[in-house]
Amino acid sequence: MSSTYGKIFKISTFGESHGRAVGVVIDGCPAGVKFDSEFIQNELDRRKPGQSRITTQRKEADSFEVLSGVFEDFTTGTPIALVIFNEDQRSKDYGHIADKFRPSHADFTYHVKYGVRDYRGGGRSSARETAARVAAGAVAKLVLKSLGVEIYSYVSQVGEMTLEKKYQDLDLNLIDSNAVRCPDAEMADKMFNYIDEVRKQGDSIGGIITGVLKNVPAGWGEPVFDRLHAELGKSMLSINAVKGFEYGSGFEGVKMRGSAHNDDFFIDENGVVKTKTNNSGGIQGGISNGEDIYFKVAFKPVATIMKDQDSVNEAGEKVTVSGKGRHDPCVLPRAVPIVDAMSALVLVDFMLRARTNK
Amino acid sequence: MSSTYGKIFKISTFGESHGRAVGVVIDGCPAGVKFDSEFIQNELDRRKPGQSRITTQRKEADSFEVLSGVFEDFTTGTPIALVIFNEDQRSKDYGHIADKFRPSHADFTYHVKYGVRDYRGGGRSSARETAARVAAGAVAKLVLKSLGVEIYSYVSQVGEMTLEKKYQDLDLNLIDSNAVRCPDAEMADKMFNYIDEVRKQGDSIGGIITGVLKNVPAGWGEPVFDRLHAELGKSMLSINAVKGFEYGSGFEGVKMRGSAHNDDFFIDENGVVKTKTNNSGGIQGGISNGEDIYFKVAFKPVATIMKDQDSVNEAGEKVTVSGKGRHDPCVLPRAVPIVDAMSALVLVDFMLRARTNK
Amino acid sequence: MSSTYGKIFKISTFGESHGRAVGVVIDGCPAGVKFDSEFIQNELDRRKPGQSRITTQRKEADSFEVLSGVFEDFTTGTPIALVIFNEDQRSKDYGHIADKFRPSHADFTYHVKYGVRDYRGGGRSSARETAARVAAGAVAKLVLKSLGVEIYSYVSQVGEMTLEKKYQDLDLNLIDSNAVRCPDAEMADKMFNYIDEVRKQGDSIGGIITGVLKNVPAGWGEPVFDRLHAELGKSMLSINAVKGFEYGSGFEGVKMRGSAHNDDFFIDENGVVKTKTNNSGGIQGGISNGEDIYFKVAFKPVATIMKDQDSVNEAGEKVTVSGKGRHDPCVLPRAVPIVDAMSALVLVDFMLRARTNK
Amino acid sequence: MSSTYGKIFKISTFGESHGRAVGVVIDGCPAGVKFDSEFIQNELDRRKPGQSRITTQRKEADSFEVLSGVFEDFTTGTPIALVIFNEDQRSKDYGHIADKFRPSHADFTYHVKYGVRDYRGGGRSSARETAARVAAGAVAKLVLKSLGVEIYSYVSQVGEMTLEKKYQDLDLNLIDSNAVRCPDAEMADKMFNYIDEVRKQGDSIGGIITGVLKNVPAGWGEPVFDRLHAELGKSMLSINAVKGFEYGSGFEGVKMRGSAHNDDFFIDENGVVKTKTNNSGGIQGGISNGEDIYFKVAFKPVATIMKDQDSVNEAGEKVTVSGKGRHDPCVLPRAVPIVDAMSALVLVDFMLRARTNK
Repeated sequence: MSSTYGKIFKISTFGESHGRAVGVVIDGCPAGVKFDSEFIQNELDRRKPGQSRITTQRKEADSFEVLSGVFEDFTTGTPIALVIFNEDQRSKDYGHIADKFRPSHADFTYHVKYGVRDYRGGGRSSARETAARVAAGAVAKLVLKSLGVEIYSYVSQVGEMTLEKKYQDLDLNLIDSNAVRCPDAEMADKMFNYIDEVRKQGDSIGGIITGVLKNVPAGWGEPVFDRLHAELGKSMLSINAVKGFEYGSGFEGVKMRGSAHNDDFFIDENGVVKTKTNNSGGIQGGISNGEDIYFKVAFKPVATIMKDQDSVNEAGEKVTVSGKGRHDPCVLPRAVPIVDAMSALVLVDFMLRARTNK
Repeated sequence: MSSTYGKIFKISTFGESHGRAVGVVIDGCPAGVKFDSEFIQNELDRRKPGQSRITTQRKEADSFEVLSGVFEDFTTGTPIALVIFNEDQRSKDYGHIADKFRPSHADFTYHVKYGVRDYRGGGRSSARETAARVAAGAVAKLVLKSLGVEIYSYVSQVGEMTLEKKYQDLDLNLIDSNAVRCPDAEMADKMFNYIDEVRKQGDSIGGIITGVLKNVPAGWGEPVFDRLHAELGKSMLSINAVKGFEYGSGFEGVKMRGSAHNDDFFIDENGVVKTKTNNSGGIQGGISNGEDIYFKVAFKPVATIMKDQDSVNEAGEKVTVSGKGRHDPCVLPRAVPIVDAMSALVLVDFMLRARTNK
Repeated sequence: MSSTYGKIFKISTFGESHGRAVGVVIDGCPAGVKFDSEFIQNELDRRKPGQSRITTQRKEADSFEVLSGVFEDFTTGTPIALVIFNEDQRSKDYGHIADKFRPSHADFTYHVKYGVRDYRGGGRSSARETAARVAAGAVAKLVLKSLGVEIYSYVSQVGEMTLEKKYQDLDLNLIDSNAVRCPDAEMADKMFNYIDEVRKQGDSIGGIITGVLKNVPAGWGEPVFDRLHAELGKSMLSINAVKGFEYGSGFEGVKMRGSAHNDDFFIDENGVVKTKTNNSGGIQGGISNGEDIYFKVAFKPVATIMKDQDSVNEAGEKVTVSGKGRHDPCVLPRAVPIVDAMSALVLVDFMLRARTNK
Repeated sequence: MSSTYGKIFKISTFGESHGRAVGVVIDGCPAGVKFDSEFIQNELDRRKPGQSRITTQRKEADSFEVLSGVFEDFTTGTPIALVIFNEDQRSKDYGHIADKFRPSHADFTYHVKYGVRDYRGGGRSSARETAARVAAGAVAKLVLKSLGVEIYSYVSQVGEMTLEKKYQDLDLNLIDSNAVRCPDAEMADKMFNYIDEVRKQGDSIGGIITGVLKNVPAGWGEPVFDRLHAELGKSMLSINAVKGFEYGSGFEGVKMRGSAHNDDFFIDENGVVKTKTNNSGGIQGGISNGEDIYFKVAFKPVATIMKDQDSVNEAGEKVTVSGKGRHDPCVLPRAVPIVDAMSALVLVDFMLRARTNK
């Protein structure tokens, strides 16, 4: 009851970290969308492991296959099933933690909830699941692209290391120009070295990803519960390791007076209603107003570390969990395409819902 | 398509600020719950206007009526309809802004989305809609109470004025002991005066509400998209004026190393699996682990201020929006019961969903 | 979890037979629809009790009130709440059956399912609930009318008395010209007398309603599970006392050969693709093809009769259930507007869904 | 938006007749269910083509693979993905109808709705899609089996050839003892020869399947819209070629008087509430009452025949559609496991929903 997302562009993901495959079924994709396989594979490549020495060394090509819903390179309106078969399933790496609860992982909560669990690599709770989201998100991006919607996200903070520049002052086309996915080359270098240091210590570190959605037409998002930012928030918080979300003026905005925070309207040279400032983050009353949408997503340091930790096992005994296997010292570089994907999934659903408003 | 919330304990709210009534239909409330009308009215009273001089002076008793679903003081399992008829509908107050877009309100976005809108007091986009949520949340609280679940929230920051004490160091039973709903009397006093000052200036100010959920059993929440914290985040972000949400270590946690952030497990004297620290905020892998759940919600300064502002109207002309009518200089004191209500609605739905897991 | 219907044009009904009110919240009605109150009241009048001596003599004006979602006579896109307060609640009529299970009613199953139940007049299981559907269906009809869609249904059989004429050979504008709602005056007379005879005996009788949907554009309905006829079937089977549904060639069609049953295509004088025959009933692959949609709905004789019957009570004792109060000897005349309403609710939802297909 | 079914035990099917694969993702299957692969394959074998000379000769092993959700032979509560790769995809058979609308198929309606379509073998509109339902239904059956619920269906009519015996007078264990799936050997023989005759003529014939659900506990099903029989009806009507559904006394029951139709209650020797008759078909007020549930499903003669037919093409030209390829002269023998599967999917969802009622 939990691996489906979306009301109209509805996705259903499946797959365990060390099972046969991960994948997704998209039900509700409009017909007639050019299905650009290369683009989708490229998005998956941005998320795949082993991209540089600061990401996990698990070897997965993450090549996807289309099982349905596409005919002669166009979507047909029927369910699109995309599958990525797992290759590097070194399950034996996990025998030593089969009945142990790794600290700050989902082992204990899955055990309580379900009684049984696939302990290999965290099973369903592994971030490997997000490959399916990236595949689905790439299809959503294809739909949105035709409307001119642009989706960006980048690493703006690692640990205490913060990129002070605003998104307006960055060249967002440089995001993928380095392994960290920070569009400021100098800062990216520093972050890389920092993460590499943390990696050598067998530890992990958190950070922040900033998202920017451009050219979203006014009128997307729904009032009351399904506000655009509420769905964005939910979708980001559904990504592994995320602990916080803010948009527009965010947590800092609470300190402002209304008279300073309010975004006055004006008519621009093209007769379009615009706002002078954008503390609203492009969303008012839960509905896009045509300005840039921007937000921040906080990622904790991931739980997998190469150190010994105290814990307990299923039998209720005290045990030591030893750090073994492969890990990401900082998930943020690989999380950038996931943030993109979730943004796209949120937007495409609201795009379709908006067609039914009047 | 937007005023419904919940998968099993499903609510559907309705009503405009200056329409006939606001209300809610709850479909999926379990049968056999003692329906404590006094408790529900008390929750509504915590949200109603006119509680002190730092809240809007609109006069509404906010008395609710039960139209269905309750028989001889018990819920019957059939839909529960609760209605609050509007009393103080001084609609004429709004004639002067009928075709104007108030800055940072939803006037413009509703106009684009729907073409028509009830401009009186913001119509559906008014926070008056939250009265229905509080009524529904109170019913949810009644269901949860029988399981010992405790729900608290309080004002922990107003503008730059921050309560530094952690929730563990506060007596949460004192939340309602003052008009601000901050359980620290001294800080509450300061906040009150601060807000009153802002009020006199005809301005508004933001702040933060901290939420604490105690005795939530391990195993609530779903993996992947409907994580407990993702639904909490969505539900909080769906409240008017909210700009951010974090739980557990939140945005600050991104600076930590995994070795420091991880919550080691141990077995307590009763044989229960506990964690030594609680950076996870009571949720691991999207599922409650039995520890306290805690989170923060950021509210912007509300848009209604008693000052002249530049704007445009439906005809695309430059206009001045004058501050008139009544307003809340700081919504946080009245938002506390709304945060409680949304917490309860999230929890009760996951409680019921958990019954289907194995 | 059961009183909501629709994916986009979503309704949530509430109310018990002898509670305070019945009503409905419509979430997802497009904005800008002219809200014709008179038309809605007229639809309710077609369903209300006491229309003639062959319907129950319960006195209910069934006047509806609009609580939200309508502004200056147009829908605003926000939830529309419609309420009908109950007037004639002679609850004391039901004291004698408070703990008894009336044969072929829902008393026993509600008791097992919920533990508690509002026994007065069947509570939620009463057909009084359908007043809310008729109100919602009337709004749906208003939306569909602007597209030229026409919705008809009429009584085509009472007991063994069958109207042999096909719908094509009837003047469907005569449906409301008599108390039975059979457009053939002669047959209507016979049916009236038959029902009246049954009424005098304190008994009840079943029958069939035929539905005809004209001018439904090709392309409505979804493949696989949510086929147009599957939703029509579900919606009709959700009406009290319905035992069967068929469309197009229906149960009789099973006897035909494919070569005779297939509807050959041709191009008519306007260049429109049409079928020579219409055994498909206007639906192919679950999707409308532009031809007339027609179907039959079977109603059992209602369970309330004015005779003594053997039964048991909650304590497991043998009891006699005596016929008292008021009853409909044949529900079909009053069920016609309900069939109309459900047809409209199904169609309007598919109309809106179709906007997201390509 | 149309290939998902269920509220809690939620399935999402995918796949085209001549695409790469058909399959299903089940989200919401309880954890801890023994996953009996042999049983599931056996259910698929009951549906697969080529079982006898009266079914299509397309060659498909219909072997399924498990991609996720099962660990060490038990379900884990996470999504179960099942895939059946297509083998015999003689797509070239379909070139001649690429732009033609076959009479009474979904070619025309898909064309209108989506603009593009996979014409090979009907693409998504092919009954091949039901293989995925049978796989999902088999998992549902495994869940239900542990509660003792028994699901049967059988062919009770082919063309005008009707099995007059009631289900109570048949040995339902003999259903699979012949190619027709009629538990009466003599009648099965006659039906076989009849269908074979129709096959030789290149024609097709319809029929009726009777379903019987035993040991369904009282209390399953929901009031109002999601009545047990309404969902059964919808699910059956969603099967290719189905034109009608009735349960209990059905269409014949409309002729009865209430006094004869009502099912009087009594207490049996074990203190259980039972009914003396069962015109209600085991369902009252939309909720199971513990008696046998029984129903009938009408199937039209399938549209694919080996004869020339008049039609039109996408260009609006008059064309002839020639019968080629392989076809089922009568789908009923292969539809029996599909009816079983849909019954199981309906029941398992209500089983889980019932856990949230009180």
